[in-house]
Amino acid sequence: MPQNVRIALDAMGGDFGPSVTIAGAAIALERRPDSRFLLIGDETAIRAELSNHPRLAERSEVHHSAVAIRMDDKPSQALRYGRRVSSMWMAIEAVKKGEADVAVSAGNTGALMAMSKICLRTMARIDRPALACLWPTLRGQSVVLDVGASMGANASHLVDLAIMGSAMARIILGRARPTVGLLNVGTEEIKGVEEVKAAAAILRESNLPGLEYAGFVEGDGIGMGAVDVVVTEGFTGNITLKTAEGTAKQIAAYLRQAMGGSLLAKLGYLLARGAFQELKSRMDTRSINGGVFLGLEGVVIKSHGGTDSVGFARAVEIGYEMARSDLLNQIRDTVALAHQFEGERAANTSNPPQEAAQ
Amino acid sequence: MPQNVRIALDAMGGDFGPSVTIAGAAIALERRPDSRFLLIGDETAIRAELSNHPRLAERSEVHHSAVAIRMDDKPSQALRYGRRVSSMWMAIEAVKKGEADVAVSAGNTGALMAMSKICLRTMARIDRPALACLWPTLRGQSVVLDVGASMGANASHLVDLAIMGSAMARIILGRARPTVGLLNVGTEEIKGVEEVKAAAAILRESNLPGLEYAGFVEGDGIGMGAVDVVVTEGFTGNITLKTAEGTAKQIAAYLRQAMGGSLLAKLGYLLARGAFQELKSRMDTRSINGGVFLGLEGVVIKSHGGTDSVGFARAVEIGYEMARSDLLNQIRDTVALAHQFEGERAANTSNPPQEAAQ
Repeated sequence: MPQNVRIALDAMGGDFGPSVTIAGAAIALERRPDSRFLLIGDETAIRAELSNHPRLAERSEVHHSAVAIRMDDKPSQALRYGRRVSSMWMAIEAVKKGEADVAVSAGNTGALMAMSKICLRTMARIDRPALACLWPTLRGQSVVLDVGASMGANASHLVDLAIMGSAMARIILGRARPTVGLLNVGTEEIKGVEEVKAAAAILRESNLPGLEYAGFVEGDGIGMGAVDVVVTEGFTGNITLKTAEGTAKQIAAYLRQAMGGSLLAKLGYLLARGAFQELKSRMDTRSINGGVFLGLEGVVIKSHGGTDSVGFARAVEIGYEMARSDLLNQIRDTVALAHQFEGERAANTSNPPQEAAQ
Repeated sequence: MPQNVRIALDAMGGDFGPSVTIAGAAIALERRPDSRFLLIGDETAIRAELSNHPRLAERSEVHHSAVAIRMDDKPSQALRYGRRVSSMWMAIEAVKKGEADVAVSAGNTGALMAMSKICLRTMARIDRPALACLWPTLRGQSVVLDVGASMGANASHLVDLAIMGSAMARIILGRARPTVGLLNVGTEEIKGVEEVKAAAAILRESNLPGLEYAGFVEGDGIGMGAVDVVVTEGFTGNITLKTAEGTAKQIAAYLRQAMGGSLLAKLGYLLARGAFQELKSRMDTRSINGGVFLGLEGVVIKSHGGTDSVGFARAVEIGYEMARSDLLNQIRDTVALAHQFEGERAANTSNPPQEAAQ
C-alpha cells in the first residue's frame, strides 16, 4: 500500500477543464491530505489555476500535454489523435508506469474506456471491464455495475461482475461478505432472461468466498438498498442509472413548482428551509460522482463531464479510496479464489458422470 | 365503435379481490357513465360488494366462476387449473366472443399474458405482444413499452413496438403523429446494441405514417418527456419502470424524514400542506395504473395487483379509452400501412441491383 496516494489527473477532461479539475483536486486534498497529484494537460492553464491553490501546488507535479480529447469524438477518433500524447492517455499511462496509483478523468467516457483497455489491459481471467457506480439507497449506498462499459453479458461475465463489485463493496461499505443480487424482472426463480438465470445458478451453487449471493433484485429494490451489490449488463445498467437520475430531477422540478405556488407554500418553504437543504443534499448527484472502471490492470475513475469542483472532488476521493484500499489485489484475490473453487467444482462434478458411464 | 363500452372485469384478480375491483368499477362508472360491466368471479362475494354500489349493479351482469388464479402461480400452473373456468380466462374470453370490448384484471401478470395469448391470439403480422404503460413526464405523459411482456427483441420487433406504441399514443395523447424514441445508452448514432441500431435504421429510412421517429432517448429523457413514445425490449423496460417507481418512493421517504425533523420543518410543512398535497398527487402511481397489452386480437388491461379502488378505477378507465377509441383498428391500420410501405420499399430497392447485374 502506498504511503502517499498518488493521483494522476486528466486536467483537461470534462466540460470545463482545469477550472473544475484543479479546484476539485484542491477540495479533495483538504479532505485527504496524504494525496499527491500528477496534473496533466496544458501547463499554462494548469499553472494559472494552481496559483489559486498554493497547498495543492505544493503537492503536485505538472506534466504538459498539448492534446485534449474532445467530449464528442468516437473512441477510434480519440485514439487516432490522442494515443500517447493526450492528457487522458498520459494520466492512464502514469498508472501503468507505476508513477500514480489511480487516474481520474471527467473526459469522454468511450475514449477513456478504450484508452484504459489498450494501455492497462484487462486483468487475468476477466474478459471485459465494467463501470461501477455508488447508488444512494434508503439503507446507505450500494455498488451497481455495469453502468455502461460493455453491452450485453453472458452468465460468466455476470459472475465476474459479481466478484468485482463485491471487492469494491468490501472497500466502500466495509462489509466482509457483501450481499449480491442479480437485476431481473421478478424475484421468482422462473423469470428473466437465460444469461441471468444461468448466472444465478452459478452464484447459488458456487457459494463464492467474499460475497453472499442474495437472489434476484427488481428495479425498485435498488433504491431500497435490497442488496449491497446490484449486478446487470451495461445496456440495462446505464439506462437504469440514468432513469433514476432523471426521476430525481423530475421530482425536484415538481417540488420547486409546488413550493413556488401559493404564498402559504412559499412561507412554509422558508420555515422548513433547513429541511429542504437536507433533502437537497441527499438528492445531490455530486455526492456519488465517480464511476470506477473495474477489471483492468490499474484503477481508473470516470467523473461526470458536466460536474463542478465539488463533484469532481468526490470522484478524486473515490479514486483515493480505491487505491488506498488496494482494490486491484482485492479483486485479484477474489477472482483467484473463485477460479480455484470453480476448478474444484469442475473436477468434482466431472467425475460422477464418467463413473456412471463405465 | 360500440354505443356503450362493455368492460369485462376479473373481479377476483389482485391482492384484495372484489372489495377493490367492484369499488373501483363503481368509481370508473361515475366518470364514464356509458360503461357497462361484466363482473366475473365468485357470485356471492360480488353481489355482497355490489349491494354497496346500486348504480354499478344496474349497469352490470354477474357471471359466476368458482376458480380464481393465484397471484404467485407460474403461467403453466395457472393454465392447468384455470383455463376456460377461471374468472381471468372468462374475462378474456368475453372479449373474444364479442360480449365485451375490453377485459381488465389485477391478477397474476404472467398468467394474464399467457391466457390472453392463447385465448385471443396475436394480431396478424405481429410476432409477440407487448405491455405498454403511461409514464408521467414534465411535459405530461408518454407511452413506454415493452415493460415486461417479452424478454429481448430483434430490430423488427422493436419496429412493431414503435408502431403499436404510437397507435396508443394517438389515442391517449391525441397527437396525429406522436414522436417515437428508441431507449439507448447514448443519443449518438454509434452507440448501443445492434438490434437497437438496426431498428433505428429501419425507422429512420421508412418514415412510417402515423409516427415521427425522433432518434435515441437516454434513461433520463423519459421523465423529461423527450418523446411521446419510448421503445425498448421487455427486460430493460420492466427494470426501468420499476427503478423509476423505486426512486420516487425513495425520495418520498427522504421528504418525510426531512419534514418530520425540526419544529420549524414541521411548521413549514403545515403551512405548505396544500403544495405537498399537490406534489403527492403528482407522484401518485395510482393515477398511471393500468398497463395495456398490445398486439393481441382484443384489448386486455393489467392493473397493479396491490392497488386500491382508486388505482383500479384508473385501469378500468384506460381500458374504456382504448375500447372507445378502437385501439385495435388503430394498430391494424398502422401495421398494414407499414407493411405496404415495407413491401414497396423492398420492391424498389430490389430492382436497381438486378439492373446493375445485367
